[in-house]
Amino acid sequence: MTYCVGILLKDGIVLASDSRTHAGVDNFAKFCKMTVFERAGDRVLVLLSSGNLAGTQAVINVLKQRSEVTSGAPNIWTARTMFDVVMLVSDAMRDIERRDAPFLESGPVSFNASFIVGGQLKGEPPRLFRIYAEGNFIEAGDETPFLQTGEAKYGKPIIDRVLAPATTLADATKCVLVSFDSTMRSNLSVGMPIDLVCYERDSLEVRKRRRFNEGDAYFTALSADWSEGVRKVFQELPDLQW
Amino acid sequence: MTYCVGILLKDGIVLASDSRTHAGVDNFAKFCKMTVFERAGDRVLVLLSSGNLAGTQAVINVLKQRSEVTSGAPNIWTARTMFDVVMLVSDAMRDIERRDAPFLESGPVSFNASFIVGGQLKGEPPRLFRIYAEGNFIEAGDETPFLQTGEAKYGKPIIDRVLAPATTLADATKCVLVSFDSTMRSNLSVGMPIDLVCYERDSLEVRKRRRFNEGDAYFTALSADWSEGVRKVFQELPDLQW
Repeated sequence: MTYCVGILLKDGIVLASDSRTHAGVDNFAKFCKMTVFERAGDRVLVLLSSGNLAGTQAVINVLKQRSEVTSGAPNIWTARTMFDVVMLVSDAMRDIERRDAPFLESGPVSFNASFIVGGQLKGEPPRLFRIYAEGNFIEAGDETPFLQTGEAKYGKPIIDRVLAPATTLADATKCVLVSFDSTMRSNLSVGMPIDLVCYERDSLEVRKRRRFNEGDAYFTALSADWSEGVRKVFQELPDLQW
Repeated sequence: MTYCVGILLKDGIVLASDSRTHAGVDNFAKFCKMTVFERAGDRVLVLLSSGNLAGTQAVINVLKQRSEVTSGAPNIWTARTMFDVVMLVSDAMRDIERRDAPFLESGPVSFNASFIVGGQLKGEPPRLFRIYAEGNFIEAGDETPFLQTGEAKYGKPIIDRVLAPATTLADATKCVLVSFDSTMRSNLSVGMPIDLVCYERDSLEVRKRRRFNEGDAYFTALSADWSEGVRKVFQELPDLQW
């Protein structure tokens, strides 16, 4: 499993992914699921990948290789809008699916790569998308400013309760980390390190990126404070009068 | 979908179920998913049902009808242990599955009834079980004192954080209601009323049963207090220093 989340705010975007991959409980490993394409002053693109690792790695490689060719075909460095960027990711996904799917059909693992793509291109506001395994996609908006993939349920209640488009980047960062804490407590297949980017609107460069490893002092303190605080709130709730 | 939860404590058992059933989003209804068999001074059995309503209703009817026959075959009034009670529920499930499954095979809806069964028989401590759709089952214990069925994920983090076997019945009742609140915020297919039984160990009768309807004053206050408290705890968490 995987947990990835992207949050679109008035002030920017917060994106985070876990790093655990597994093929059965006796075969798990760490792989970074966050890929950043950055050209300072022009564009910042952050991709968070979920699903079969062979599929997601192939898609990222295709995107990178295509971006190195200057044939004139549009690539992620020449795309003019986030919509066009997401179309390119979708195209790469479908190319890999066309290649792999017939060979995966006979086995238990299907092609199931999916992505959250967030960022900003010069001339556009920051935008955030979720691409489904089929290659079609949706964009976050004011009513639903966050998108999740993978093990989304355990960490959703806290986001639902505290998040709005006007939330500050600092608060959204905390919210994402609490959401990961809840998820990792309940699902062993989501695991550290957590990769997090906090992108400031119109900065057009990544100024805040952080990896939270097992035992990270801030994350540990946040988790403990949250647990204690929640238990305290709980204790103060009124008892039911029968 | 459905949400049912049972919690086994040193002081007794708390059991609760939602009431929403649906066949597609344009066909939803309310049905009580809690069935209580009670003979004061001798036994209290509470069944919470999940899954296809035709299946779970048939199972309950079979159990009731078999309990009215005094042929000597064991039934839920004559069973000597909770294990035997759960075996009877499992038998009824398998009988209905044998009857229905071949006719459901061609359609999209399979036989998928499952139950949480909690209670106490004179001479035994309170016990709590979860019966899978296949009719096999597990029993809660000190390490895992709670069992959920249906839409279990959204409401699990709060139970994980505050619950232990020594938790009081009053606190466990609150915890269950907060867990339902989180679930209903995130999944429209879980809905009020909530049926809740708070069974006191060795009482051998149901003294505390309550239905929480939409707009219930206590539930509404609990939900508001919880939201406000959680947001406050969140605001007091330390910011990340980049």
